[in-house]
Amino acid sequence: MKLRTHTCGELTEQQVGARVTLQGWVKKRRDLGQVIFVDLRDRTGHIQVVFDSDVSEEALKTADQVRSEYVIEVSGTVVKRSEGTVNPKIATGTIEIHVDEITVLNAAKGLPFTVDEESDLNEDVRLKYRYLDLRRQSMHDTMKLRSRVTKLIRDMLDEEEFMEMETPMLTKSTPEGARDYLVPSRVHEGSFYALPQSPQLFKQLLMVSGFERYYQIARCFRDEDLRADRQPEFTQVDIEASFMGKDQLMAMMESMMQRLVKELAGVEVGGPFKRLTYDEAMNRYGSDKPDTRFGMELHDISEMVKDSGFKVFQSAVENGGVVKGINVKGIADDYSRKDLDELSTFAKVYGAKGLAWLKVTGPEEVKGPIAKFFEAPDQKALIQEFDAEEGDVLFFAADKIRVAWDVLGALRTKFAKERNLIEPGTYDFLWVTQFPLLSYDEEEGRYAAEHHPFTRPVEEDVDKLVEEPEKVRAEAYDLVLNGYELGGGSQRIFERELQEQMFTALGFSEEEARAQFGFLLDAFEYGTPPHGGIALGLDRLVMILAGRSNLRDTIAFPKTASASCLLTNAPSEVEEAKLKELSLKVEKKKKDKEEAKQQ
Amino acid sequence: MKLRTHTCGELTEQQVGARVTLQGWVKKRRDLGQVIFVDLRDRTGHIQVVFDSDVSEEALKTADQVRSEYVIEVSGTVVKRSEGTVNPKIATGTIEIHVDEITVLNAAKGLPFTVDEESDLNEDVRLKYRYLDLRRQSMHDTMKLRSRVTKLIRDMLDEEEFMEMETPMLTKSTPEGARDYLVPSRVHEGSFYALPQSPQLFKQLLMVSGFERYYQIARCFRDEDLRADRQPEFTQVDIEASFMGKDQLMAMMESMMQRLVKELAGVEVGGPFKRLTYDEAMNRYGSDKPDTRFGMELHDISEMVKDSGFKVFQSAVENGGVVKGINVKGIADDYSRKDLDELSTFAKVYGAKGLAWLKVTGPEEVKGPIAKFFEAPDQKALIQEFDAEEGDVLFFAADKIRVAWDVLGALRTKFAKERNLIEPGTYDFLWVTQFPLLSYDEEEGRYAAEHHPFTRPVEEDVDKLVEEPEKVRAEAYDLVLNGYELGGGSQRIFERELQEQMFTALGFSEEEARAQFGFLLDAFEYGTPPHGGIALGLDRLVMILAGRSNLRDTIAFPKTASASCLLTNAPSEVEEAKLKELSLKVEKKKKDKEEAKQQ
Repeated sequence: MKLRTHTCGELTEQQVGARVTLQGWVKKRRDLGQVIFVDLRDRTGHIQVVFDSDVSEEALKTADQVRSEYVIEVSGTVVKRSEGTVNPKIATGTIEIHVDEITVLNAAKGLPFTVDEESDLNEDVRLKYRYLDLRRQSMHDTMKLRSRVTKLIRDMLDEEEFMEMETPMLTKSTPEGARDYLVPSRVHEGSFYALPQSPQLFKQLLMVSGFERYYQIARCFRDEDLRADRQPEFTQVDIEASFMGKDQLMAMMESMMQRLVKELAGVEVGGPFKRLTYDEAMNRYGSDKPDTRFGMELHDISEMVKDSGFKVFQSAVENGGVVKGINVKGIADDYSRKDLDELSTFAKVYGAKGLAWLKVTGPEEVKGPIAKFFEAPDQKALIQEFDAEEGDVLFFAADKIRVAWDVLGALRTKFAKERNLIEPGTYDFLWVTQFPLLSYDEEEGRYAAEHHPFTRPVEEDVDKLVEEPEKVRAEAYDLVLNGYELGGGSQRIFERELQEQMFTALGFSEEEARAQFGFLLDAFEYGTPPHGGIALGLDRLVMILAGRSNLRDTIAFPKTASASCLLTNAPSEVEEAKLKELSLKVEKKKKDKEEAKQQ
Repeated sequence: MKLRTHTCGELTEQQVGARVTLQGWVKKRRDLGQVIFVDLRDRTGHIQVVFDSDVSEEALKTADQVRSEYVIEVSGTVVKRSEGTVNPKIATGTIEIHVDEITVLNAAKGLPFTVDEESDLNEDVRLKYRYLDLRRQSMHDTMKLRSRVTKLIRDMLDEEEFMEMETPMLTKSTPEGARDYLVPSRVHEGSFYALPQSPQLFKQLLMVSGFERYYQIARCFRDEDLRADRQPEFTQVDIEASFMGKDQLMAMMESMMQRLVKELAGVEVGGPFKRLTYDEAMNRYGSDKPDTRFGMELHDISEMVKDSGFKVFQSAVENGGVVKGINVKGIADDYSRKDLDELSTFAKVYGAKGLAWLKVTGPEEVKGPIAKFFEAPDQKALIQEFDAEEGDVLFFAADKIRVAWDVLGALRTKFAKERNLIEPGTYDFLWVTQFPLLSYDEEEGRYAAEHHPFTRPVEEDVDKLVEEPEKVRAEAYDLVLNGYELGGGSQRIFERELQEQMFTALGFSEEEARAQFGFLLDAFEYGTPPHGGIALGLDRLVMILAGRSNLRDTIAFPKTASASCLLTNAPSEVEEAKLKELSLKVEKKKKDKEEAKQQ
């Protein structure tokens, strides 16, 4: 192997006449009898290399043997193409290399799929041959984008004097939050480390240590049942700062997002970003990560309909629920009665019993299965409430408020997609603030932290922590982009007493709190500064910036929905001896079938 | 809390007259009756703040209550100190803040140790209160240095067009190398992931994918019995490149090291770095990571002494061993016969049976217990061989070559320290190349890879792989700094056939090779470029640059020698239910005592 003089992509007409040595992959090969053309590809692009009658017989013979994806080295002269043969579609289209030497560095047999085209492939095949899938231009570009995102974020945080610091991966299992991945200890028999769900406690301890500005692009782990957009290991941009209030932190994040979008997508995003409280987001959009690139806001008509003749609406309100609706504009003609009735199935996914609808058929008139329950003035009032006109369809959810939010929130997103209401290339950032601090967990019979137990209550709600915990709002903020939650953070509790109150509110006994978080409570007594932070999901951020819809496409070696790696076949069984060293034994659960048999 | 207008460290006489708000920790407080002085510290430095008679009574009362490590906020005016009160020892020593407002942001009780002085502390206490230990200036500085090292490395690799890419942490257990940390899978009953010992296979697959230039600052894991300078999790700067020969890669690393040392230590290091082959390093220095900041090289005197009257030397050579020695200059007067005899104990640690020595007492004369075995001409020859003079002491190891290397290698380092032969502030970089590819593992009865099974043999040795595997040299290179191995790398095998030969040489059956590394062998058939890389131990690099000797001091939250975290008490026992979910049961081994009882 010689030293490469240039990469394919950097060659231009400026090098015409120069002798160059290139190395790369055969992207395409065309044999025209006396002349062989090869498109040579490397990480920077590709260029046409030509073996014509001037070349040695040996070189021509070699060129004759190479096939797609062979790795070759060629030396030759850069030549300007004649006008008729210029290829304006590629960056190097005005030049070509007239080769005089070729070496095959490695051969390639036929690939299981072509990497030269963006064909749709079965994802399992792509994951098994991930090393080939990553050769495809779009995957290559996504990985490159990911590394640029990372570099830009690091540079910006460095400018703001944030220090990159590492926190442990082998850490302590805690009962709060999602399920931990456990790592058995060989030295401490019967003991386990846990892989971190986030560096939360350690970054807070770094604030106690006085570093003031910490960041880390950290791998995190959650052993949860996976959904399409979840991975057992994921990467977060983890940030924590002392003496920096919520507003200053949010402003910094806004400027980071603006720069990212500008440098990577060329789009100027205005600021400051909108802020919605949690209540406002839910009531207007039925979602705590609302997509506000389109309207279709929720309206509460509980008051209006509580005395209507429609039992379903009436009893929803009587039972402490609500009636809410949205107006989907101009779809009346495109959706038959059957189509609209079928949306009940969609609504049921979100826990609703059904989905009521009305077509607006005139300035003061609605029609549909439930129209008969509304007198003329009520029909008019509804039309006014939703600012509706002929051709619109109103949808209603009458249920507990949570269900009404969920159904209508999902419905507006569904229609926005179906009706193409979203302008492409829009980056719609916003903050959702003042989440509830706690929510009651019916199953466990106690309150659970909405974010985590270290989130600070809004100052004026602190007094309610003991008596009315459900009314306490958190000093928390989620960053939302185009309806995706990019990340979230909060100001933290930094006083021992308040942290203890929080643990009490969560139903921890003093001993439990001490056993799990004693070191944090101790730390709070030695001069802990006010601090707060945020964590962004890097995988999702890259996904949106790359214009992709599959989170796995942003990760070089992702796992499937069953947490397997199809490339290496992980996880796998291990030798008995290894388990013995760990004092562990696998005790397989009886399969359901066998259980059934035995009964 | 207000917004801070400045940090303590950035204030200079330029701000005299300005009103500022500062936040930080009370480093020291001196109460002089009517005036209270507080040294306020933040991440950037510290400054004197003064509460004098002008201040409100309330503020004075508060100032009277604060103690060391309280977190406070002060507002006041920057004032130039009068000449007599200037403190030239601190950066802000010409100014002080005349405070008019003070708020206690958080109190602090008495710390378990003072963070204001660099006192020697028991390391267990430091680790238990790591968040306080990290407040100490030297630890703070080391962490800052670490983040600067990281940033510089990233920037340099970015300039060289290396892409940062992430590889999985939950990966496949492999039988080669050190012991893996295992992670039980909940979804795949009885199966385990392994935490990576390095991203080796994935970075090679990224080369197959055509990224050409990859880097990652990656966490790696080894479940080994720990030594002082080992951690169960450690961080490596992981680099891999295609189409970049060994020399180009080494040159790039040299320039990276030169820039790091220049920017962080202000020292210019010349280049290119020395290169020693493994044989040369061992024969001259008795170490594959030689410290060449001092001489004291090993001399082989096997030929010279094989017919001497000294049985020990004679039989060592007859049994296929060697006799080697070093000359420690000018120590004869400082080391008594007893001192020198006692060095045998030191030698035995390295497997030697003893350590022979001779004092040089004249231009042609040596004395000592074994002097009588050497005739006058032989004494003279010895003196000449070692270029010795009166006052020097010669030490000899007569043993298997491996033992002779180890003993004398350790001895020269020991004397270099004892005799202060090392000039401080020297950065002595060198490469050790051409390591043996394989070494015979007596226990396992087969060859094992010295680096790993993907290391490429030196081109002219490839033919010996089957017949004389022990003679094959590796295309590997270790980077050594001041006697520490900073890292190592190699050019890799990229041809399926050669990789298969390597697995055969390692005693893998075809099935075993297929089961473990089938995906890699497959990948090699689809157009794999020539590639190679290197990995640097970040923890150790920082340790040397920080002038420290304890690896744990370079890690924010390290583990003890028994792999425990004294701060969080990880690892710990977990609830039975969690293990049940993983289909695991802990089966404690019987303690040795109990076993003894039962016998």
